[in-house]
Amino acid sequence: MTVPSLPQGMRDFDATTVQKRNYILDTIKNVFILHGFLPLETPAMENLDTLLGKYGDEGDKLIFKVLNNGLNDEKNKEKAARGFEKLMTGKATAELTERALKYDLTIPFARYVAMNKNTITLPFKRYQTQQVWRADRPQRGRYREFTQCDVDVVGSKSLWNEIDLAKIYHEALTSLGLENYSLQINNRKILSALAEKINAEDKMTAITVVIDKLDKVGIEKLTTLLQEINLEEAQVNAVVEYLNIKGTNEEKINSLSNFFSGNTTATEGIKELSFVLENCRDININIDQTLARGLNYYTGCIYEVKAPKEVSIGSIGGGGRYDDLTGMFGVKDIPGVGISFGIDRIYDVLEELNLFPEALAQSLKTIFFYMGEETIANCQNLADQLRKDNIACEVYTEKAKLDKQFKYAEKKGIPFVIMIGADELSEQIASIKELKTGLQHKVKFNEVAAFLNK
Amino acid sequence: MTVPSLPQGMRDFDATTVQKRNYILDTIKNVFILHGFLPLETPAMENLDTLLGKYGDEGDKLIFKVLNNGLNDEKNKEKAARGFEKLMTGKATAELTERALKYDLTIPFARYVAMNKNTITLPFKRYQTQQVWRADRPQRGRYREFTQCDVDVVGSKSLWNEIDLAKIYHEALTSLGLENYSLQINNRKILSALAEKINAEDKMTAITVVIDKLDKVGIEKLTTLLQEINLEEAQVNAVVEYLNIKGTNEEKINSLSNFFSGNTTATEGIKELSFVLENCRDININIDQTLARGLNYYTGCIYEVKAPKEVSIGSIGGGGRYDDLTGMFGVKDIPGVGISFGIDRIYDVLEELNLFPEALAQSLKTIFFYMGEETIANCQNLADQLRKDNIACEVYTEKAKLDKQFKYAEKKGIPFVIMIGADELSEQIASIKELKTGLQHKVKFNEVAAFLNK
Repeated sequence: MTVPSLPQGMRDFDATTVQKRNYILDTIKNVFILHGFLPLETPAMENLDTLLGKYGDEGDKLIFKVLNNGLNDEKNKEKAARGFEKLMTGKATAELTERALKYDLTIPFARYVAMNKNTITLPFKRYQTQQVWRADRPQRGRYREFTQCDVDVVGSKSLWNEIDLAKIYHEALTSLGLENYSLQINNRKILSALAEKINAEDKMTAITVVIDKLDKVGIEKLTTLLQEINLEEAQVNAVVEYLNIKGTNEEKINSLSNFFSGNTTATEGIKELSFVLENCRDININIDQTLARGLNYYTGCIYEVKAPKEVSIGSIGGGGRYDDLTGMFGVKDIPGVGISFGIDRIYDVLEELNLFPEALAQSLKTIFFYMGEETIANCQNLADQLRKDNIACEVYTEKAKLDKQFKYAEKKGIPFVIMIGADELSEQIASIKELKTGLQHKVKFNEVAAFLNK
Repeated sequence: MTVPSLPQGMRDFDATTVQKRNYILDTIKNVFILHGFLPLETPAMENLDTLLGKYGDEGDKLIFKVLNNGLNDEKNKEKAARGFEKLMTGKATAELTERALKYDLTIPFARYVAMNKNTITLPFKRYQTQQVWRADRPQRGRYREFTQCDVDVVGSKSLWNEIDLAKIYHEALTSLGLENYSLQINNRKILSALAEKINAEDKMTAITVVIDKLDKVGIEKLTTLLQEINLEEAQVNAVVEYLNIKGTNEEKINSLSNFFSGNTTATEGIKELSFVLENCRDININIDQTLARGLNYYTGCIYEVKAPKEVSIGSIGGGGRYDDLTGMFGVKDIPGVGISFGIDRIYDVLEELNLFPEALAQSLKTIFFYMGEETIANCQNLADQLRKDNIACEVYTEKAKLDKQFKYAEKKGIPFVIMIGADELSEQIASIKELKTGLQHKVKFNEVAAFLNK
């Protein structure tokens, strides 16, 4: 006998959780579709070499690798032993694990675009909502299986895409009731200009990585970290001056223009920011020149969305423009821009702010209680009629005390209980009890659907 | 550089395929919900020992096992070596692979019920539509990643559940346009009675396995197979006589009653069949006493659904009653009954019979062509307005020749193209072209939504 348990960091989703998750996903997907994006799904597994080396050394370790089958067949044993030997030196190879579980949606998307470059039409606009797996140490809010929700346009350099994506954030999050989310924008060109201005272009990545930590460590500690990457005092001071720029979007644009005066890279970045902001007047979007985003592949506008301040959850999404999606698969010059929604975190935010619609739990409208063998067939017939009117219902078919049946109905969140005993049957009238109010109604059999649809 | 490719037996689903698959899944789920079933989702991975030993030796080999992470850490190396040594003798252990990918939805469901026995309320009615993985040799119509779609009631012995499930098959398949599917029913008790009648109760499983092959091998070959499991001539003749029973449901009930006269197991099985058929008068359902279904755990009514005869695809679903779902996890006395839909095969059937609704591909209603920088902001504004009216649309933002833009629109199946150049802008009138007919319309900006919603 096996004592049943779940793997660490993985979850079952019961009916209520599935309904709430689907509510989030459906709301967001609907916005994607309104903006002309179409779905794509890729398999759970990719070939090992599609994934290895794409997420840094740390990422490589956290990829779940799938053991080849049939390794103990005579013809495979030698290969398996070679693979195991390499594994013990820290090198995963196809000899032992040809396949691995996907770690994000971006690399499989890039693989798809590269594989299908001759049949897809650019610009290619796709959304993708699928599970990914990471062998991270599980902790609160961090799971080993979680859902990513990405939307990208590839093959277009137009800034109107950035504007479209900002609108998508706005429409999706306000549809979910998150009016006071905060959408921050920056541009990697401005960060490049910062490195240029202090003559530290070679340290661009290191500076970005440090700035990315500002939120967590504060400006004091950041100064130390900048020193640790061997910036001199004047350089550190310039970075701090940059980070300290404050004000409205307009004021920031002015301050940044002054700070970088004459730097063409900065001018371009600031121009892009201005263009996006001018065309996003109806939505809440703020320049945050301290926003860096850790990922190396961003090259233009970058976004981050934060949950409303009253919940201490932080980032619920992010994204940006990249110049080269598919170069790693041998297909050059496919630029793109994309954003992502953190579904598990949005779930926690909606839960904490009590923003899930109450009606979600009420997928089942009514239940016919078991009142004896002699009326059950009639209940079944009536239930069939209700279903034709699109009313979800069930018939309790076990002999059970009424209070047990009431508990069952409450647990499933069913608002109406229908009782048909011998008396009701002879009168062709159903007794309907509304659980919330306790009110009882007598309704003719042929009027039950109309009553419930009221 | 990695040459991009997909793992064997796995598929990408493009937009059209996703839409078609979702159409099938949504149609079926809607029927589940109408019948009071609620969703459940379990993770892609289970602990290895949850899955091992549940699908027979062959199944154990086909389970995808996930390599533990950090095996080359000093503290894990010894354990890993032990695990690898066992693997080479054909024994997968948690030392190397703690986790495995789910192989079906039934065992994870059983694990869920056993783990949550104190919080779930019986009868527990759930549906589950998730992917499963099997290291089968890929071939036409058989994939290594595929979708299972199961619906089960556990904790109820009532035959009304069998009736409900037959109705679910009927409503789901006819909603998909598959009116002339064939639903076959049998009862394992009748098969047990057959073994009793020929004094071969010890060979019950073997006989079932052979009968299960009738469809593939025919009655001649079946006789040989029955001899091969050491049945004597008289026994083989009785089985053949049983298999040859023909006629309407009523005639078969009579013939079976005569054939088994006095056998109480058969009487019970026949009574159950009769009860189900009496209460399924409106739907197409046929007794097939040759239906066996290979799986050992069935104990009562069993079902199989076949695709319409004009497509040679065979079974598109099946299921039945089982007495003990969770015994293997130490929780006794939870009987149940469930059915399953073969989503990938149903997809092929609908494709072959051309039964997918045409409207599916038309999620995008219109596209604004790029007619120059000076009108694009107006197109964006108009697009925002249309989206508020729930019209899915996009703006082409790249400078491109009109025929390239038309090709883009055609490829995405967009029915209406909107063109706003400088003239249209000054007149506040949009040129709208209907791609199917080629008809051109002049529509005032503020009437575009109404025009498209017509």
